[in-house]
Amino acid sequence: LTSKLPSVGTTIFTKMSALAAEKGAINLSQGFPDFPPDARLLERASQAILTGNNQYAPMAGLPILREAIANLIERHYDRKVSVLDEITVTSGASEAIFDAIAALVHNGDEVILFDPAYDLYEPAVTLAGGICRRVTLSAPEFRPDWLAFAELLSDKTRLVLINTPHNPTGSCWLAEDLESLWQAIASRDIYVLSDEVYEFIHFGESAVSVHKHSELKKRSVVVSSFGKSFHLTGWKVGYVVAPAELTVELRKVHQFVSFCTATPLQQALAEHLMALPEASTGLAVFYQQKRDVLRKALADSRFTLLPCEGTYFQLLDYSAISDMQDVAFCEWLIDAVGVAAIPISVFYQQAPKDQRIIRLCFAKEDSTLLEAARRLAQL
Amino acid sequence: LTSKLPSVGTTIFTKMSALAAEKGAINLSQGFPDFPPDARLLERASQAILTGNNQYAPMAGLPILREAIANLIERHYDRKVSVLDEITVTSGASEAIFDAIAALVHNGDEVILFDPAYDLYEPAVTLAGGICRRVTLSAPEFRPDWLAFAELLSDKTRLVLINTPHNPTGSCWLAEDLESLWQAIASRDIYVLSDEVYEFIHFGESAVSVHKHSELKKRSVVVSSFGKSFHLTGWKVGYVVAPAELTVELRKVHQFVSFCTATPLQQALAEHLMALPEASTGLAVFYQQKRDVLRKALADSRFTLLPCEGTYFQLLDYSAISDMQDVAFCEWLIDAVGVAAIPISVFYQQAPKDQRIIRLCFAKEDSTLLEAARRLAQL
Ligand SMILES: CSCCC(=O)C(=O)O
Ligand SMILES: CSCCC(=O)C(=O)O
Repeated sequence: LTSKLPSVGTTIFTKMSALAAEKGAINLSQGFPDFPPDARLLERASQAILTGNNQYAPMAGLPILREAIANLIERHYDRKVSVLDEITVTSGASEAIFDAIAALVHNGDEVILFDPAYDLYEPAVTLAGGICRRVTLSAPEFRPDWLAFAELLSDKTRLVLINTPHNPTGSCWLAEDLESLWQAIASRDIYVLSDEVYEFIHFGESAVSVHKHSELKKRSVVVSSFGKSFHLTGWKVGYVVAPAELTVELRKVHQFVSFCTATPLQQALAEHLMALPEASTGLAVFYQQKRDVLRKALADSRFTLLPCEGTYFQLLDYSAISDMQDVAFCEWLIDAVGVAAIPISVFYQQAPKDQRIIRLCFAKEDSTLLEAARRLAQL
Repeated sequence: LTSKLPSVGTTIFTKMSALAAEKGAINLSQGFPDFPPDARLLERASQAILTGNNQYAPMAGLPILREAIANLIERHYDRKVSVLDEITVTSGASEAIFDAIAALVHNGDEVILFDPAYDLYEPAVTLAGGICRRVTLSAPEFRPDWLAFAELLSDKTRLVLINTPHNPTGSCWLAEDLESLWQAIASRDIYVLSDEVYEFIHFGESAVSVHKHSELKKRSVVVSSFGKSFHLTGWKVGYVVAPAELTVELRKVHQFVSFCTATPLQQALAEHLMALPEASTGLAVFYQQKRDVLRKALADSRFTLLPCEGTYFQLLDYSAISDMQDVAFCEWLIDAVGVAAIPISVFYQQAPKDQRIIRLCFAKEDSTLLEAARRLAQL
């Protein structure tokens, strides 16, 4: 049996969450909330299951949910998208990203992404027969270097994968980055996959989004996640917006990967969005407060806090504490102080050898964050 | 934009269900029940959402659900499978099939399947860079021809895709078919993907399953569907059983395609299976009664009823009524009598030119079936 993905092991999220559970550590590794979602949304889902439709949803998603998504996008980004031809509901943002890559990347195509990058991009490209080229982002700011980017462009480049707010670094792009990207690819036959699952969790003035770039959006597949925006990572409902000609190809894959997504959960999200059109606007304030609780509690520790402009992840430099590699350090950390974190080297193709940085998830109750910080500050 | 799947359009299920809805026809096309699932299962799902975990499930599935699946398999098939290493919960059987094909089929590999075949197999093989070879099954019995099969075997053959009970024909394999398959591939480096989503809907003595073949099961990925077995096609929870070395590869794909499946729905299914261990055993009797209601009501019509040994699909030969091609006939049928069916030519690579057969889904209330039959019998 020859593996299609020989260099892939079990994801770090599975490993660290399992280790945290086994050792009873506070789990700030895998990104998910430890607090409940809005009770009204749960009530809607309960009702949808008890009295609604439990059979296949339409392949592209429930029409009322797509309608609600179109409203959301118009309100937040002042962009009009076609409910029929440009929105597709998927089984989580993961499936959306996988579908887009499978639909757009041909055998031998090159895909440019940024190092570090979320761990599912590269295997999806590999399965499609594509080759990843990476632009390095350097700590502590992790700013994209557009000259380095331009050097990677070739006639084989088919797709650029971007992600802002950025997992795992918590950095956010500026409007000028999207413009630089556009300038670099405008004259070429290149598409963009924009992973914007943390779109509503940003702490600066206003979030950058491909939805707001009048040219880029015509070439882009933009991926969003209800899991992140409504504290429901276990529902696995995401969606993807793309121009009709890209959506046609993406749906060809989607209809054979999962066909459709849990109907009652779609129904509940649709009703919730209709009833509370501003449901996601408080999210940045909510998470900024949590970020600040964590940062304050670690301010006097021997960890160095890196900037955090978005997502629910905070990076810590631990080079003042240990010279261990980050994977070993995270394993040690679970035993030593009972806190599980994510080593960021796993998101790199080539992690800087001397980099000593871990990622904490702050989508947690304040009490969880304070106790974790107390333990970490002992080091 | 060069399509990766140039010959793929919107699936026939989407088309026919949409047309049925638009024209107000009785929808016997896409396969799904029009009656509610067990109220106790819905109650469990409602509770799981209101009071349980709404965050990521473990990548391979909730441990208690995998435990319940292992029990189910041991009871029904007298096969012991490892909860840890051989069972994976997926976002429907579709995702399981897609993952298995993506994990096992390399660029240039050949895959043997049977014509007609469920519509997702071939695009999944195409996306993996594989090539499909098909053994023709002929009406009315649709029995596999093992000599024809042997002729397709080559050093490039990597995977055989089987499906019993069979969609769209409703035929079931015999134990001797599995044995013939085993004899043909035993000495070769070939895997089997067995789509057994209708495993509990069979009307003969006992259903054939790879789970029960002591040799074949060691080479096979077996796919099952809670949607079909519990009248919940809209929950999109399926699972896949495979030896550890195949499961490792399959999960590498699964973890990047969808990562995991809706947690509260998994929880509800686990509790349901634990509380009602024999939940699926009445299914064959239940559907046999529905099959017979439909058959009896059409017995005096001008349609010829083909044999139906399993699944919830009944084939009808309409050559005494019309000489139209089946796609045109199905479109006409919606307007002429208000019944939507599936033309089976869409499942073929090469449909026999003179074949005039459509598929009806009988997973419907008896009253629905009787009214549909009354309309069809007018022809
Ligand atoms: C799909 S599990 C990983 C969750 C996540 O996005 C993260 O922790 O980065
Ligand atoms: C995924 S929609 C198709 C349902 C089905 O299996 C069928 O009708 O054959």
